[in-house]
Amino acid sequence: MIDTSHNGLPSIAFLGTGLMGAPMARRLLGAGFKVTVWNRDMSKAEALRSAGADVAATPADAARGVDVVFTMLSDGKAVEEVLFTSGCADVLRPGTVLVDTSSIAPPIAKDHAARLAARGIHHLDAPVSGGVVGAEAGTLAIMAGGDAAVVERLAAVFAALGRVTHVGPSGAGQICKLANQQIVAITIGAVAEAMVLVEAGGASRERFREAIRGGFAESRILELHGARMIARDFKPGGPSRLQLKDLDAVMSMADQYSLELPLTERVRSEFSEFVAAGGGEQDHSALLLHLERLNGHKA
Amino acid sequence: MIDTSHNGLPSIAFLGTGLMGAPMARRLLGAGFKVTVWNRDMSKAEALRSAGADVAATPADAARGVDVVFTMLSDGKAVEEVLFTSGCADVLRPGTVLVDTSSIAPPIAKDHAARLAARGIHHLDAPVSGGVVGAEAGTLAIMAGGDAAVVERLAAVFAALGRVTHVGPSGAGQICKLANQQIVAITIGAVAEAMVLVEAGGASRERFREAIRGGFAESRILELHGARMIARDFKPGGPSRLQLKDLDAVMSMADQYSLELPLTERVRSEFSEFVAAGGGEQDHSALLLHLERLNGHKA
Repeated sequence: MIDTSHNGLPSIAFLGTGLMGAPMARRLLGAGFKVTVWNRDMSKAEALRSAGADVAATPADAARGVDVVFTMLSDGKAVEEVLFTSGCADVLRPGTVLVDTSSIAPPIAKDHAARLAARGIHHLDAPVSGGVVGAEAGTLAIMAGGDAAVVERLAAVFAALGRVTHVGPSGAGQICKLANQQIVAITIGAVAEAMVLVEAGGASRERFREAIRGGFAESRILELHGARMIARDFKPGGPSRLQLKDLDAVMSMADQYSLELPLTERVRSEFSEFVAAGGGEQDHSALLLHLERLNGHKA
Repeated sequence: MIDTSHNGLPSIAFLGTGLMGAPMARRLLGAGFKVTVWNRDMSKAEALRSAGADVAATPADAARGVDVVFTMLSDGKAVEEVLFTSGCADVLRPGTVLVDTSSIAPPIAKDHAARLAARGIHHLDAPVSGGVVGAEAGTLAIMAGGDAAVVERLAAVFAALGRVTHVGPSGAGQICKLANQQIVAITIGAVAEAMVLVEAGGASRERFREAIRGGFAESRILELHGARMIARDFKPGGPSRLQLKDLDAVMSMADQYSLELPLTERVRSEFSEFVAAGGGEQDHSALLLHLERLNGHKA
């Protein structure tokens, strides 16, 4: 079903070679796949030529005749345009797999899956977690929604990028990504509130973080974002405006499912206030600054 | 300053050999310390005789002449009674160290430290995190408030119990323990809300947890309490009523310092509702049940 014309490996188009897409495309090239890249700003696609990529002028040119098409784009609208407005979907052969690694709204992912299925094209919504560092190291957590057999079939492709888990039907990958962001945001809030209490109580924030490592409060957030809070290093990383965008998306799904998610709603409103006060470009760990202001500390 | 009459090691009294105290006393015995134990329910103290403990009938009998006195009691009132009402403090020699590993209110710990200091007795507030499992394995996180030199002097004693960190002056250990519990409670809430979203969105909770491990959402809570939520195994562990007690203590300190801690306040009110609805004896991970009820799921 997959044309293995290049070293016995499926051929790949990679659409969207920005901050995340470029290192992902490099990982695929490094694993021996034939990869044709496209990016709206073509200079970012050209930069991959030295790593062995072919460069296409349009999404359709990149995708014509390949076995697997990856997209890594900024939002649902961008994916819609690249797939359907640009004519990319029209050149895909039945049996092709579209792997959308962008983080977009679950209903849009489901809609894309249904429209591609009508043309005999497989769709996986496969957003990732792990950031640029994970993309470069090939250690992304990939949450895949869609047909389990298709995820299985692409095992060698995903292996070049990180660890893939099939989490459910179409849209499930996007839901899991949102839920991941929800945990990240609330845990940042938890660590920030603990830091505020610790300082008010006369204890050392740095010693506190040291002391509780390895216990039940241990987390990647305590490790990484806790260290940022102590060092007051708020260069992103993950900008607060994107954290807010994710939380807005979570609450929009919560509305759709009529869910009450009290901590999510609360941390969303805090990020909203922080971004409104000008914190949007600071790392999401800078939620500490918002809490400190709320409690009358100097920023 | 410390009498090293037994194998060159300081002699120890351990007051309160319940769920946590018993394995801690066993660890000290296993490390070669001479330990005299006392417990209100004497059968729990007697049970340590076979491990080499001497058993005393009163706190004062246990503490008379020793170098270090440990307390592991249920609350500040119990510590007050054992130290001051029972006459224990009266028999301590100047230079003795009282290590209170109980989790009690920071102002009470400071008060005890001041009253003992007036008698020339050192006080460390040194609450622990890691539960019975950590106590048995000698891997407790110990947060010590008080004189750094005294913490240093007891390095060999603490090494038998886990990892000690000096976090600040008297009371700082208790503040850090509260902040630790704050992070634990909010992170449980974060994982529970994510689980609710994941299920509403048609993804698998189990696969979700698998997928996000190793990413920014990784935590001990996701690992342990997330597994409990998936298995719906809510036998404590850490009962919800104790989690609520800890959160009440956090908010009481927040009131004292005039702090706003929005996520803490929110999760406190959720635990309060859950306990009021009869969930007090279930593990704190059962906050998921509260959220499911809030969202109209069947329990």
